[in-house]
Amino acid sequence: MVTRAGIVVTGTEVLTGRVADRNGPWLAEQLRRLGIDVGHVVVVGDRPDDLRATLSFLAGLGTDLLITSGGLGPTADDLTAQVVADFQGRPTAVDPALEQRVAAVVERLMARRGWRADPEATAAGVRKQATVPDGATVLEPVGTAPGLVVLPADGTDGPPVVVLPGPPGELQGMWPAALAAPAVRALLEGTTELHQRTLRLWGTLEAQLAATLREVEPELGGLEITTCLREGELEIVTRFSPDAEATYDRFADVVTDRYRDTVFSTGPTLDELVAQALGDHGLTIATGESCTGGLLSARLVERPGSSAYVLGGVTAYANAAKQQLLGVPAELLAEHGAVSPEVARALADGARSRFGADVGVGITGVAGPGGGSSGKPVGTVHVCVVGPDGVRERALRLHGSRTAVRERSVTMAMHLLRELLLGGPPA
Amino acid sequence: MVTRAGIVVTGTEVLTGRVADRNGPWLAEQLRRLGIDVGHVVVVGDRPDDLRATLSFLAGLGTDLLITSGGLGPTADDLTAQVVADFQGRPTAVDPALEQRVAAVVERLMARRGWRADPEATAAGVRKQATVPDGATVLEPVGTAPGLVVLPADGTDGPPVVVLPGPPGELQGMWPAALAAPAVRALLEGTTELHQRTLRLWGTLEAQLAATLREVEPELGGLEITTCLREGELEIVTRFSPDAEATYDRFADVVTDRYRDTVFSTGPTLDELVAQALGDHGLTIATGESCTGGLLSARLVERPGSSAYVLGGVTAYANAAKQQLLGVPAELLAEHGAVSPEVARALADGARSRFGADVGVGITGVAGPGGGSSGKPVGTVHVCVVGPDGVRERALRLHGSRTAVRERSVTMAMHLLRELLLGGPPA
Repeated sequence: MVTRAGIVVTGTEVLTGRVADRNGPWLAEQLRRLGIDVGHVVVVGDRPDDLRATLSFLAGLGTDLLITSGGLGPTADDLTAQVVADFQGRPTAVDPALEQRVAAVVERLMARRGWRADPEATAAGVRKQATVPDGATVLEPVGTAPGLVVLPADGTDGPPVVVLPGPPGELQGMWPAALAAPAVRALLEGTTELHQRTLRLWGTLEAQLAATLREVEPELGGLEITTCLREGELEIVTRFSPDAEATYDRFADVVTDRYRDTVFSTGPTLDELVAQALGDHGLTIATGESCTGGLLSARLVERPGSSAYVLGGVTAYANAAKQQLLGVPAELLAEHGAVSPEVARALADGARSRFGADVGVGITGVAGPGGGSSGKPVGTVHVCVVGPDGVRERALRLHGSRTAVRERSVTMAMHLLRELLLGGPPA
Repeated sequence: MVTRAGIVVTGTEVLTGRVADRNGPWLAEQLRRLGIDVGHVVVVGDRPDDLRATLSFLAGLGTDLLITSGGLGPTADDLTAQVVADFQGRPTAVDPALEQRVAAVVERLMARRGWRADPEATAAGVRKQATVPDGATVLEPVGTAPGLVVLPADGTDGPPVVVLPGPPGELQGMWPAALAAPAVRALLEGTTELHQRTLRLWGTLEAQLAATLREVEPELGGLEITTCLREGELEIVTRFSPDAEATYDRFADVVTDRYRDTVFSTGPTLDELVAQALGDHGLTIATGESCTGGLLSARLVERPGSSAYVLGGVTAYANAAKQQLLGVPAELLAEHGAVSPEVARALADGARSRFGADVGVGITGVAGPGGGSSGKPVGTVHVCVVGPDGVRERALRLHGSRTAVRERSVTMAMHLLRELLLGGPPA
């Protein structure tokens, strides 16, 4: 039997896009791994009617489990606990022991930050956060807000509702306790974990791949395949129950055979491949960036343990900085301009020699919206990667916003790094 | 009368979080500005039943307008046009003129990328993308996929459905055409644009603010106020129709008066304030980053026109790089360690002098998960900002993931910059 869940993310700040929703995707991924199928992630504002209607809609689809995030704070627009209590037909009351625990947490937090607050206002907030539906399982606060698992009132039907806080750190910290709650554990016992595998291609058109999928479809029973194009990379993500492992292997063989010129990974992400290759070969790296302004460097440093191979980088935005910090010759800048293959190479060489790194990367371009010319329009970017045994370079004409041009340039630099370090499909 | 819209974002890759949804928030914001209220943003996978159920749910809530994004690609899992046609009771057919236009776009795209593809597969994809519901308004492709505005079949009731492509650049490029479609224009004529204003606080507890809001609530008729805590900043966002302008002004006065020590902006974001201040004072800036690895530099460069004041930055991840590229004395590193207020200051000074900038910023810390010690646990970060007339520095003990520690450190550096350049509430 397929166990299905629905996720409800509350908060006007999420609905209006002021804060990006990180909880819906995170919860969907956790549930998928547990073999629970997620059909909908619904974002609603801080309005009781909208939340209530959404819970009814998802329950009406035959969903086995509902999860909410957000709306557990101390302010009046935080109303999830009350709406869920009503939905499940349960009265609410203050839990005095919980009230004390929350009060202690709030006190510690304020002391640490050295903030002052009106004691009465603080107490009202704490009391609100400790108001829980009758019979609910309380999940201990990770921040200040407790979570809840609320079953339908006795004699009524419907899925349990797991109520989690909005801050991603609190929600994720509370997740193990939510899974351990009896009602959730009982659901999980009936499900089989699904596997997920990913193939990554660089340089194949989605329509071309679609034709291949249609052709081999009759042999793919038991595989749920989705394709997705992201920053020029085509991802094929497949989910299957453990008994379809052999079917998946056959499918992966067909794809990697037909697209051997473009499949660059049968699992790891581009960033994982590059980090692994640098580590395996014992190589260090340094960057010289102009238009990307440190984005590549920040992307490399994002990985834990990157200090083993990242020596650093220079954002040389001004021409004087290119000369002084990375030794780009003034004549080169004068002759070819800052946005040129020659300067990309000089930035890579300069980063390499100034940091004493094995591998250097240079990026220079016109990210826009201003600064373009007829010969070098916005989106013109030169990327160069220099290693102990070779060089890879690429001239790009990118479309889109300043942010898009910068991100795509960094992705291209990562692909050039992959090609230089690992061979395989050309970047 | 309030005009209400519902947004449906399709795509298994969005539902599972492989791709972050940027369309729901963007559309919600556009609609809000037009005075249209958005109650729900629903993310569904590539399953016809789930999409159909969602359209019915939102239409059943009395929604006046439905907007979908995604599912218009050439592959079999792109099924939005067909499901919407069924939902509105309209048959579909290939539009031959549209087919030719889409084919021309695809051909250009492939030529530019130098990709090869099977002509038959490509033609099948094009035909699928040119298959439209009878009587629909076609919105010309921005990428390869046309959009649609589909009304209910004659004699039936319900809201129009605007069908837009998934790639954010295509969706945004098509938006003006969607607004110009007769059915959408008719809806817009009946609505009043809403104003939105934001107050930003740094250092006030949300519960404290909630108490103030409860107290002044009786005087706030016509204001829709939401508060949101983000990276330590408290945002108060208020929406109101133009005739409530004076009420809002009174409210803003009360808040800025009571919280004069923490309100740092009555509108602009932190990044806008810092950029504006650098420009107004004619100051240049350079950065010296360790644990943040270029994130601050990338954040500063993200703004168009930043080349006027950002000279560059050094990511000095290795100690040797700190010495050689930013002149941090070896003795200082030996005596205090790389993570120390002294080294943060030396990084700021070094960035300032090496780039010849007016303002220098230094950040050094333990982002984790490894590298912590009892004296300097993970989350220990030192930030220092040095300008022509002063210095601001701060020692932090941050909680959370590597990413959270790095982002929070950069935000603190931005607040120190604001304080140094503009005075106002302490960072």
